[in-house]
Amino acid sequence: MDNERFEKQIDFILEVDKEKNIIRQTHLSGNGRRENDAEHAWHMAVMVYLLKEYANEEFDAAKAMMMALVHDIVEIDAGDTYAYDTKGQETKKAREEQAAERIFGLLPEDQGEELKGVFQEYETSETPEARVVRVMDNFQPLLLSNANNGSDWREHDIGKSQVMKRHINTKSGSNIIWERAKEIIDRHVRNGNIKDD
Amino acid sequence: MDNERFEKQIDFILEVDKEKNIIRQTHLSGNGRRENDAEHAWHMAVMVYLLKEYANEEFDAAKAMMMALVHDIVEIDAGDTYAYDTKGQETKKAREEQAAERIFGLLPEDQGEELKGVFQEYETSETPEARVVRVMDNFQPLLLSNANNGSDWREHDIGKSQVMKRHINTKSGSNIIWERAKEIIDRHVRNGNIKDD
Repeated sequence: MDNERFEKQIDFILEVDKEKNIIRQTHLSGNGRRENDAEHAWHMAVMVYLLKEYANEEFDAAKAMMMALVHDIVEIDAGDTYAYDTKGQETKKAREEQAAERIFGLLPEDQGEELKGVFQEYETSETPEARVVRVMDNFQPLLLSNANNGSDWREHDIGKSQVMKRHINTKSGSNIIWERAKEIIDRHVRNGNIKDD
Repeated sequence: MDNERFEKQIDFILEVDKEKNIIRQTHLSGNGRRENDAEHAWHMAVMVYLLKEYANEEFDAAKAMMMALVHDIVEIDAGDTYAYDTKGQETKKAREEQAAERIFGLLPEDQGEELKGVFQEYETSETPEARVVRVMDNFQPLLLSNANNGSDWREHDIGKSQVMKRHINTKSGSNIIWERAKEIIDRHVRNGNIKDD
């Protein structure tokens, strides 16, 4: 057996433990504490599997689940950039690419290149897997914010145009989930939890 | 589209959000806080994918990853039973079976039966997927406890016989990982972090 290869894999596995300390803006249901990236990724992967019948296209479930599991690993270095933080979004790409080099670079070369590829594929939204994972990346916090009666949106004074912009790719991944997301968004606009801008 | 089906899926997805509040005995690396079940499951699923070359048998990666992701969902009702809590282990099976009925029963019948089947399959350790997920269920906390210089074992005054009993199935899933696990265990026995009983 190749000890060096195994050690690199274990180094990566321990490094990504830090994702459990990257805190998002979304709160857990039941008006709980703020969610972390590892929990978010876990929830998304479960959703990818359970909601696959609603994807617009056939996709490879193992690949999409792994994409969901690792898509935020770069935030260990780059931090979580809130979806509605305009300034942070400007520098996000460069910060995350540098992080991808370092963190996926801990793995043996073949696996590092594979996962960096999976991460970059997710970023482009150009494959069925990337599109379905993008749907879940947006629909998961929408479900939590909805379960908390919109408090995440009220806290940050979020407008409808911002929410719609965030969901720009949801329709291309799943028409059905997009219809449901829109219903939820519209209800919170009517209730004043999302500003009608 | 079948609204009732979609609502059941969303009910389940929101219910399992509670897994993020089920706290385990293991601490995050860097002597961090105690880990929760969703984080543990996320970490295990990543490990299933990255360490698949070490499994004794070929296995279905999507199925094994989903098994890793949902194997602790029953603890939402049944609570986490510490691996070294002898009394808790006696009633664990009955408590978890009841929980599986309720929680997987929230899903549409086909998916509820499928996931209950995946959970029960995991419990038996009788398939390649179940065996490899069992390996990660034990190897993941071992890596964290090792990274924290054995403090989890010292805190609970754990003996080698208990650790070996916990790992009873590791060898049947992966000879290679079992060899590594044994090296780690033996080192902590020598250092006195695990009692030599």
